[in-house]
Amino acid sequence: MKTVAIVGTGLIGSSFGLALRAAGFDGEIVGVSSERALAGALAAGAIDRGAPLGDALVGADLVFLSQTIGRILDTIRHVNLMVKPGALVTDAGSTKCEIVDVARQSITRCQFLGGHPMAGKETRGPESADAALFQGRPWVLTPDEPSELDTEAATEFADWLERIGARQVVLDPLEHDRLVAMTSHLPQLASTALGATLADTRGTEVSGSGLIDMTRLALSSYELWRDILATNAEAIERALSLYIQELEHIRENLRTRQLQEEFERGARLAEKLRRARQD
Amino acid sequence: MKTVAIVGTGLIGSSFGLALRAAGFDGEIVGVSSERALAGALAAGAIDRGAPLGDALVGADLVFLSQTIGRILDTIRHVNLMVKPGALVTDAGSTKCEIVDVARQSITRCQFLGGHPMAGKETRGPESADAALFQGRPWVLTPDEPSELDTEAATEFADWLERIGARQVVLDPLEHDRLVAMTSHLPQLASTALGATLADTRGTEVSGSGLIDMTRLALSSYELWRDILATNAEAIERALSLYIQELEHIRENLRTRQLQEEFERGARLAEKLRRARQD
Repeated sequence: MKTVAIVGTGLIGSSFGLALRAAGFDGEIVGVSSERALAGALAAGAIDRGAPLGDALVGADLVFLSQTIGRILDTIRHVNLMVKPGALVTDAGSTKCEIVDVARQSITRCQFLGGHPMAGKETRGPESADAALFQGRPWVLTPDEPSELDTEAATEFADWLERIGARQVVLDPLEHDRLVAMTSHLPQLASTALGATLADTRGTEVSGSGLIDMTRLALSSYELWRDILATNAEAIERALSLYIQELEHIRENLRTRQLQEEFERGARLAEKLRRARQD
Repeated sequence: MKTVAIVGTGLIGSSFGLALRAAGFDGEIVGVSSERALAGALAAGAIDRGAPLGDALVGADLVFLSQTIGRILDTIRHVNLMVKPGALVTDAGSTKCEIVDVARQSITRCQFLGGHPMAGKETRGPESADAALFQGRPWVLTPDEPSELDTEAATEFADWLERIGARQVVLDPLEHDRLVAMTSHLPQLASTALGATLADTRGTEVSGSGLIDMTRLALSSYELWRDILATNAEAIERALSLYIQELEHIRENLRTRQLQEEFERGARLAEKLRRARQD
């Protein structure tokens, strides 16, 4: 792997460039992005130069698509004639079924392997890029078939993921989308719904730190979430239905000991998540 | 106000003792609690001595009940013959209607004024006590009639609240209970329900910091919440119903622009809460 193209040099793309450099990658890193994002990525040292898509892809051994889901889908539909045979195209989109489907149909001249680095920050853009962003965090790979992980390009990519400290997790695209519907999209909507429910309540400034925690995700903008919700609606509907069912069960048992069981189940999950982070 | 009795010298009770001292109170502070909590409060310097309830109340100008709601109700039912006429009995219970009702019937020989300091910490007990715990935090007072705030005892208590840096808020008991059902009890149950919904999902360790935030409250134990839920069930049922309705609306609009409005409403509330904390 001598040349890497990073398409979308925001927080994730620029952090990936910095992480590769910090892990000893000494090939060329070419960025494809808006003028502003390229300038930021150059200033951060995340890329060596900016280039138009076609120029960047012609020599790239690894193409990393770190755009919004809508733009990743768009890029995938247009790159087949630009890529180098033997290259690997991968992405950072946070839903996978639709991306993997479109890639299966569109990218035939080289390999595509879906990915989802589960890392982030409150702040966006190349200015917030961090070489350590992926350290200890899950990086999900979603091959259509397990054998896709055994190609030379995929093996080399996986080696670099290990070197930058990411924790590789292999999931089926559908399995991935169902899981993130529960662990990421549901918490987002639970927070947004809580904020929206309280929007017209008078006196909310008289409240504690619990509500502050529970509304942090509600600060996220719709622009960030539109593509995610649209490309994973079915799994999210199911997750919301399970959550609503649980809330109804709690509402019907406010005065009974049955609630103790719900508190214990909730606490067990919360503790499990915290243990997993410490490993 | 020369003598203060603190009944229940856990985090809140001991912090109140420390806060009074730090604000210049030079009278006696007597604690009533379990042997262990009294030892902790003494070691922290929050009380001057421990005593049985009757002994502590006989000379107290201010009686501060900082126990669980169940125990506060119990204490209120038993103190009428022990209190000094002219004293003020107040409390720190986080629901108010039932406490104020029971006090109206039980405490006739001196004044009762319901209270709810909205401050806390992750850790409990007198060992965590902090003289600055109430600084800048709301301290709700819930008189049955506004004139209850004008008595000599109530005015003096309010002066001390100001000296310890608490932000006084006056609410009707019912108004208070409806508000905390929305701003405190609903967020707790939303978090517990999220944890319980995810309890049987495989692979939750592959998740981000959003889920960690959203499940912090789920770590709370049922023991802490049982009394709160039981004494505010009606308002909580209503809050849960509004939340469920909002979640259903979101579920039905995952693919429409209508969701943008819900995200905007949620973000506006989240921002408003954060501005209120900075004031």
